[in-house]
Amino acid sequence: MSKTNNVLLGFPTSPFCARVKLALAEKGVDYEEREEDLFGGKSELLLKSNPIHQKVPVFLHDGKPLLESSIIVSYLDEVFTSNPLLPTCAYERAQARFWTDFIDKKVFETMRGIWLSKGGEEQEVAKKDFIEILKQLEEALGEKDFFGGDSFGYVDVIAIPLTTWFLACEKFGAFKVEDHCPKITAWIKRCFQKPTVVKSLPHPENVYQFTTQLRQMHGL
Amino acid sequence: MSKTNNVLLGFPTSPFCARVKLALAEKGVDYEEREEDLFGGKSELLLKSNPIHQKVPVFLHDGKPLLESSIIVSYLDEVFTSNPLLPTCAYERAQARFWTDFIDKKVFETMRGIWLSKGGEEQEVAKKDFIEILKQLEEALGEKDFFGGDSFGYVDVIAIPLTTWFLACEKFGAFKVEDHCPKITAWIKRCFQKPTVVKSLPHPENVYQFTTQLRQMHGL
Repeated sequence: MSKTNNVLLGFPTSPFCARVKLALAEKGVDYEEREEDLFGGKSELLLKSNPIHQKVPVFLHDGKPLLESSIIVSYLDEVFTSNPLLPTCAYERAQARFWTDFIDKKVFETMRGIWLSKGGEEQEVAKKDFIEILKQLEEALGEKDFFGGDSFGYVDVIAIPLTTWFLACEKFGAFKVEDHCPKITAWIKRCFQKPTVVKSLPHPENVYQFTTQLRQMHGL
Repeated sequence: MSKTNNVLLGFPTSPFCARVKLALAEKGVDYEEREEDLFGGKSELLLKSNPIHQKVPVFLHDGKPLLESSIIVSYLDEVFTSNPLLPTCAYERAQARFWTDFIDKKVFETMRGIWLSKGGEEQEVAKKDFIEILKQLEEALGEKDFFGGDSFGYVDVIAIPLTTWFLACEKFGAFKVEDHCPKITAWIKRCFQKPTVVKSLPHPENVYQFTTQLRQMHGL
């Protein structure tokens, strides 16, 4: 397949774009990456492809737009069947979708309450919620190496990019995830032994710099 | 399959429980329905099956709990292959999941801003948002009979139960959906010609009575 048939409209520090990059790397699919100017002007292609939400990631597969990172990863897993991510058992697939939904509803918004905060009571509540969410994820992980079991799977692709925002939360929230969540910390280290993870995800320091700029934009 | 192997923990006016009932009716699957006492005390089975969210619907398939209505409907479609709901084409399936995500994020919460409101500016904003959301859904429907195309499909199962809450919104918000959204209105009538829809969904008058009680509980 020609590289230019597949285009990812993305943004460097977005954990949602990183999910799509990681799934594409796991599947060995070539694509062209175009960085969107989210604060200046979004491209015509982005606005045309995602008129409802007008946000990244958009993945154009042979020109056809796919939207919402979790849905894009699921689509890629259905279309590119090598190196399967979702479980083959329907019940386990439903459980993977449940944890994806849980992560999508909870993690990013709760982290925002930590790094985009003046501190004080509000930030303490967000930190408490965040640790609680991670502990629930630790229970889902159990004694497995990955959320996918013995091998890296769908929920791992969904979850690991969000961990690149942990450093920013830790710096602005003055705490360490590893002090509370040893299993999640070990899982992160395990994931980062995979070259596909290393090459697809933003560096936590870059995310931290980006959140610093966002805080300034919000007058913090 | 014995009826008692499949149990739905539900609530009569819940549009999310109605999705599961409707999918089960479309698939011709027998099950036992148990009404939860959401305001008194939830059953041990509910709390054990859904410890994270502690909410209905829960569908126990041969004793194994499935959670989150959209995910349950997707699971049922994978396991009971007669009368397929999701499209066979991966791209169309991704689009169906996109609109499901859109509906899940927007419709119920926006309706809540209408029926659970003192009126005034806040309610006007919610009404405007609600009509805008329905117009976006009308564009997705286009000239098709159903969101699924010629036949009733996954997005129809996801969306139609929510329309049983329209009457409550119209009464408390003093407007008529049909004055703004003729295509959605025609689609609702088309769906209600199906016996599976009629038998699975709460009656709008019952939903209206229920919202009246909820308003009283909120001191409105």
